[in-house]
Amino acid sequence: MRTASQVLFSVLMAGLLTFHSASGQPAKRPIVISPQVNSDCTVVFRFLAPAAREAAVDVQFEKKPVSMHKDSAGVWSITLGPVEPDIYPYHFVVDGVHVADPNNSAIFPNEGFQNSLVEITGNQPLIHTLQDVPHGTLSYRYYSSPELGVRPVVIYTPPGYENSRKKYPVLYLLHGTTDTEETWTKVGRAHIILDNLIHQNKATPMIVVMPYGRAYPAISKSTWSLRTWENLQEFKKDFFANLVPFVETNYRVKKDKDSRAIAGFSGGGGEALYLGLNNPDLFGWVCGFAPGMLKEEFERNNAVAFANPALTNQRLKLFWIGVGKEDGLFPIISEYLQVLDEKQIRHETFISAGGHTWMNCKLYLAIIAQKLFKQL
Amino acid sequence: MRTASQVLFSVLMAGLLTFHSASGQPAKRPIVISPQVNSDCTVVFRFLAPAAREAAVDVQFEKKPVSMHKDSAGVWSITLGPVEPDIYPYHFVVDGVHVADPNNSAIFPNEGFQNSLVEITGNQPLIHTLQDVPHGTLSYRYYSSPELGVRPVVIYTPPGYENSRKKYPVLYLLHGTTDTEETWTKVGRAHIILDNLIHQNKATPMIVVMPYGRAYPAISKSTWSLRTWENLQEFKKDFFANLVPFVETNYRVKKDKDSRAIAGFSGGGGEALYLGLNNPDLFGWVCGFAPGMLKEEFERNNAVAFANPALTNQRLKLFWIGVGKEDGLFPIISEYLQVLDEKQIRHETFISAGGHTWMNCKLYLAIIAQKLFKQL
Repeated sequence: MRTASQVLFSVLMAGLLTFHSASGQPAKRPIVISPQVNSDCTVVFRFLAPAAREAAVDVQFEKKPVSMHKDSAGVWSITLGPVEPDIYPYHFVVDGVHVADPNNSAIFPNEGFQNSLVEITGNQPLIHTLQDVPHGTLSYRYYSSPELGVRPVVIYTPPGYENSRKKYPVLYLLHGTTDTEETWTKVGRAHIILDNLIHQNKATPMIVVMPYGRAYPAISKSTWSLRTWENLQEFKKDFFANLVPFVETNYRVKKDKDSRAIAGFSGGGGEALYLGLNNPDLFGWVCGFAPGMLKEEFERNNAVAFANPALTNQRLKLFWIGVGKEDGLFPIISEYLQVLDEKQIRHETFISAGGHTWMNCKLYLAIIAQKLFKQL
Repeated sequence: MRTASQVLFSVLMAGLLTFHSASGQPAKRPIVISPQVNSDCTVVFRFLAPAAREAAVDVQFEKKPVSMHKDSAGVWSITLGPVEPDIYPYHFVVDGVHVADPNNSAIFPNEGFQNSLVEITGNQPLIHTLQDVPHGTLSYRYYSSPELGVRPVVIYTPPGYENSRKKYPVLYLLHGTTDTEETWTKVGRAHIILDNLIHQNKATPMIVVMPYGRAYPAISKSTWSLRTWENLQEFKKDFFANLVPFVETNYRVKKDKDSRAIAGFSGGGGEALYLGLNNPDLFGWVCGFAPGMLKEEFERNNAVAFANPALTNQRLKLFWIGVGKEDGLFPIISEYLQVLDEKQIRHETFISAGGHTWMNCKLYLAIIAQKLFKQL
């Protein structure tokens, strides 16, 4: 039962949205729920746009945008699926304009586009599903770089960290091109995957460090490039001079190479290979998730490893590459894997279905998290 | 100097955006920088939309949306200002569709709209400006509710917390209607404001707890209401039964009422008054930032305080209300302040310029943070 004052209050609060969202535009809009995930794994997407001529949803479980239909209130909608349980990025395309879902606060952190996220779970929790198990802490921290200023970093500490005196191994986990320091948790659910794997005794409790990979202001914003040589040089300097000391000063971490891992996705995968393979005295574990690379860069970016494969094999506990068969990078990564074979650099590969997606990224993290810091 | 391979790589990475952002759409788009904040406090907004008929930017330092102009590459832009330094929400209106800025990862966390944030600093750092001072830690945590499931909460601990044995006072800080547990930091910069005030010896080092105020799934998503009676009852139960025990078990906090404060904005301001004024044995400090309220609710929502003004005055160290003169809630809050006067309930007021905005919210937080947990 809603009393008159509650109805009035709802109206008042709906009115307040005007003040929040815009300057001076009256808002009397219907309540739109989107996305609505049903128990049969179908999903309803809705978008309010009375004046639009056409609207579609572009969601990563479909091959191309799917047209939506408008009702008399001006709400466009479509029901899709049933869908294989996972978390999928999506956006609306409204008269040609790409729009994140205004009714969904789950946003893909990125510097180049705005996507929303829809989570379809099905009957069984997945490895990235938030569950009522012991949770670690996800900390948003800042550290200082003389060249780059105050830098953000997101750090996961495992359940029980605060109340223990133990030291933990560390995974440095790098985001993709145009992503931010939040993408690995908001889209990749790194903290939830670790919580679940640790609870199931499948992963060694570890600290996960997720820095921001673009070297602003030394590198201009007018480039997409995360893995350009210039950015790599700046990021490498920041990584070793500022980030690692910050982590090792402020957290109880083990400091031997076998307790230090590096992994990354896409452009960040290229970074992880570059930093890891050139510093086998610092990293015992190196993982690339669909790592970004060019053939012309193989020799330069892998110089230390290529110069001494035997020493590399001796030092690295794990060198792991995962990629999807439909990934645009699959051909170049396949060439790279052949070079590793020719040079007899030991590595594990995992060839999955699917493309260059965060669905695959979560899968790869869940796999390597069960290998890291263990006797293999 | 960019080598051929670096140019190639940039192209490759730009191509990868396709995989990230959409399914199957080729992407060959120019690099767009937006917003571009100039040293003279002017701002350039840019949006790529070659096919759009009209585009405007709706930014909270302007009274209404401002039309943008299209160049030959299909990039719409406008230069505005100089602007009074602050952080302003904005979005684009493209052929009638509201869009967050795809080139800006600073997003306003909200369940009802997508806005971006532009930060204009000027020559002097403001109280919310990220500076190279000691920083606290912002922790994303989860706690469990038997009724509501796993609940998110964002918790600020001041600089030095990790390496001390001290106990700290606690401010519970509530978001507005349709906001999330992240809005107080992403838009309100609560953690940065505290870092700066603590560094300047203007604020007592404190812990700030920023929970999520909507009682899903007990309360339906098909309502905007944060402060409805039903939501208040569910949130109150969760607050006292689960949230406060979680904080007081997992953090070194002082547990007397004079070390516990509650504040909130808009719908969350209404919540803060409801929880605070009805529990003066638990909260010594109660603050409303443009608190949402209806006249019909005054008596019910303030029952304990109104029943015994003398005891309320004795128990509360501070009862503070801030509101802007142009706020849509200014008339009702003015009526409320009259009622407080009539009932002789002691309170401080702060009437600012401006409206129902997060610009005012930051101002109010910076003011009360300098009062909390001090002898007044």
